[in-house]
Amino acid sequence: MSRYLHLANRLKEHIQMGYFAPGDRMPSVRQLAAEHGVSISTVQEAYRVLEQDGLVEAKAKSGYFVALPKERIARPKESKPPQRPMDVSLWEDVLAMLMGHGVEAVCEFQHAMPDMTSSTLKPLLKNIYELNRHRPQDGMSYGHVQGELGLRQQLARLTATTGCQLDPEDFVVTSGCQEALSVCLRAVAESGDVIAVESPGFYGAMQAIKAANLKALEIPTDSRDGMSIEALKLAIDQWPVKAILVTPTVNNPQGYVMPLHKKQALYQLAREYDIAIIEDDIYGDIAFEYPRPKTIKSFDEDGRVLLCSSFSKTLAPGFRVGWIAPGRYRDKVTHIKYVSSSMCPTLPQLAIGNFIRQGGYDRHLRTMRQTYRKARDAMLKAIEQYFPQGTRVSFPEGGFILWVELPEQYDATKLAEQAKEQGIILAPGQMFSATGKYRNCLRFNYIDRDAATRLKALAALGEIFASMGPVKP
Amino acid sequence: MSRYLHLANRLKEHIQMGYFAPGDRMPSVRQLAAEHGVSISTVQEAYRVLEQDGLVEAKAKSGYFVALPKERIARPKESKPPQRPMDVSLWEDVLAMLMGHGVEAVCEFQHAMPDMTSSTLKPLLKNIYELNRHRPQDGMSYGHVQGELGLRQQLARLTATTGCQLDPEDFVVTSGCQEALSVCLRAVAESGDVIAVESPGFYGAMQAIKAANLKALEIPTDSRDGMSIEALKLAIDQWPVKAILVTPTVNNPQGYVMPLHKKQALYQLAREYDIAIIEDDIYGDIAFEYPRPKTIKSFDEDGRVLLCSSFSKTLAPGFRVGWIAPGRYRDKVTHIKYVSSSMCPTLPQLAIGNFIRQGGYDRHLRTMRQTYRKARDAMLKAIEQYFPQGTRVSFPEGGFILWVELPEQYDATKLAEQAKEQGIILAPGQMFSATGKYRNCLRFNYIDRDAATRLKALAALGEIFASMGPVKP
Repeated sequence: MSRYLHLANRLKEHIQMGYFAPGDRMPSVRQLAAEHGVSISTVQEAYRVLEQDGLVEAKAKSGYFVALPKERIARPKESKPPQRPMDVSLWEDVLAMLMGHGVEAVCEFQHAMPDMTSSTLKPLLKNIYELNRHRPQDGMSYGHVQGELGLRQQLARLTATTGCQLDPEDFVVTSGCQEALSVCLRAVAESGDVIAVESPGFYGAMQAIKAANLKALEIPTDSRDGMSIEALKLAIDQWPVKAILVTPTVNNPQGYVMPLHKKQALYQLAREYDIAIIEDDIYGDIAFEYPRPKTIKSFDEDGRVLLCSSFSKTLAPGFRVGWIAPGRYRDKVTHIKYVSSSMCPTLPQLAIGNFIRQGGYDRHLRTMRQTYRKARDAMLKAIEQYFPQGTRVSFPEGGFILWVELPEQYDATKLAEQAKEQGIILAPGQMFSATGKYRNCLRFNYIDRDAATRLKALAALGEIFASMGPVKP
Repeated sequence: MSRYLHLANRLKEHIQMGYFAPGDRMPSVRQLAAEHGVSISTVQEAYRVLEQDGLVEAKAKSGYFVALPKERIARPKESKPPQRPMDVSLWEDVLAMLMGHGVEAVCEFQHAMPDMTSSTLKPLLKNIYELNRHRPQDGMSYGHVQGELGLRQQLARLTATTGCQLDPEDFVVTSGCQEALSVCLRAVAESGDVIAVESPGFYGAMQAIKAANLKALEIPTDSRDGMSIEALKLAIDQWPVKAILVTPTVNNPQGYVMPLHKKQALYQLAREYDIAIIEDDIYGDIAFEYPRPKTIKSFDEDGRVLLCSSFSKTLAPGFRVGWIAPGRYRDKVTHIKYVSSSMCPTLPQLAIGNFIRQGGYDRHLRTMRQTYRKARDAMLKAIEQYFPQGTRVSFPEGGFILWVELPEQYDATKLAEQAKEQGIILAPGQMFSATGKYRNCLRFNYIDRDAATRLKALAALGEIFASMGPVKP
């Protein structure tokens, strides 16, 4: 057998074995050539065979992806938010969700809490337990104003895998990513300034924009590859945009990974117009692609990117350990972080630092990637089966949440009320815009409870859809 | 012996035994009458005897106080800050202090960390240990947006002893008092607004004013009874003051307790001019007076007082558990708290809630009051002995910090540099003003290390003073 056919067969096997899942990016031509000791052209030939067989799809400038099954439900189209800066509203909706639903829940699709049942978290809990037992006095004192050095050293190491060259002193530890985003917004903008955001986008960031008396300018965003760079440029030409706040790697709520060339273009545009970028990378470490995708920060030559993240989605939100790599804004960020909440508790930082150093974090991520990918595939299948015709759904390339766009006549808030009567809790989409768009949309996590319970809950949602009558053409 | 002489002798004994220390408020006439089953006039007679003997002093509208020894060093006079709104500077000084001194310290007088060695803290550590061991999952999840109910119930109970009638839903738990102050400032004021503050005042509050783009208006403040109500009224008449930020009960840095009638007058003034009051009560529970002094919040009839506190000074700062009773600003405070750092970690809240419920908090406070009072007396004596003639010092009525005003020709920053060479770390006074006043002042804690080490360090400071030559007349 010729070399390229041999390689093509190997790759087919890997796809069929599920090593690569539908929608996954395949290894690059260069990478495969190196791994298999063959020429570039041999790999290209092999990919051509896979493409002819319908197993992979080529995407311009992005490489090869495992093809989606043909019957796959459609993805949401690029969004069309109002093209002007807006005051953020919808706090009442967010607060109502935060305050809890007050019912005995069967399945809670509304939150974005990771699966915290994996045994790979045990070494972390052991670290916390031991620190509390043997170093209670350390836990009682004020820590370092930028965060514990032991953790910041590990952050420098971790971010190296995302293409960044950062030192421990380039980090400021925060109370989760929410504080990181809030501090960064206050560091780069003043009352009345305009912040460009994805649409749909994370409600916590929208509400931080509101609290800082800033305005949100929602930019058209595609469910496959994120914020439109063209639309962003038009918006920047028209409005005095002070910063761009994006979640480009495993987006919340859509789950896409913005391709690297778009990340670079976004950085170049920000540089051209001298605008800051606040990059929320909270889900970045649980992208399904491995090694994980690079950040916009990896292109940052002049310190304009404030990279924000936390361990809330990778480990557990209750630890409240987040961080900022604030680039040229470090002094201002340190000041605002200090006045916002003083130092962060030391023991959770030390415990997480130890856990990373001991290799526990990487092991945990490996497990979670598998768990979440499997859960995503089951979720997509169930949505296809139970949701009304015309439903569109985003295709997450990591994490544990996705975005559902129902046909326009559905009202997600009403649907959520009906579902709640059966103990199924939903997150209506309007919170994910500044001004109440996306009334026919919902964000789902696909990891609450167990797979069987989720499936049953989705089937029950199907019955509610059926009871609402047929969709008008 | 007549009843009043009998009572006078008993009280004399108690003063001589140290049950009441110099400067302490004595029990009220009404209270003593009830306790000893005698008439009001009998108690008044007894106090007249003690007054004649020079053992107590009467203060108008405040009652009787244990007299200070005649040779007692003078207290700082009412401050005279510039009477106009100012941008806060001095962040570099604060940051330098926060970043640490980088030397092997003999005694650290600069910080405001409580004594955390008392065995009365053990039940709290046990609670934390048990919760971490048995309920790690609870510690990993998001908690309630206003804080854990178990803690808020205890806060409602505790604040009842300060004269407030509050329910658990009237509280918002924060990451320490720093977040509480920062959130409150953002809730009541907008960019450019003016905040009236004590002078000297807490640098963390000053820096929060800076970070929120507000202006500080320093009000003349007396080291005996706090902010001048007359000066405050003049300032409000002249400038558009949006809020008054005060630490009236065991002030930082001076340690005074504002008398109740002044607290009431401050509230009435704020009401008259429709201004919010942010009341920082972080040291209130460790006032030496028992039951502890009432808050300004206790007069609050229309929800304009935002009461802020934390367990950082009473238990340990590392837990980062603070709170706000935000009155009519609750919705806005909840919003800003949420965007600032999302929910607070649950386990420290639950542990502290349990500790209070089990009676551990009251027991701990009883011990700490004794510890701190004894340490204060030793500190005042040492300052009198070792510090240059003309030094003035505040007389703390609680807590573990005091304020030293050196003769004007001393430069506290230079002194701090010299002291640091001997491992003695000082906090120069300029951080406690918006614009670098108090260059001849210092804040000291009197609880770092042990009593003998402190005494030795103060003696060493005395040598430095001596080496600086005699004070000019």
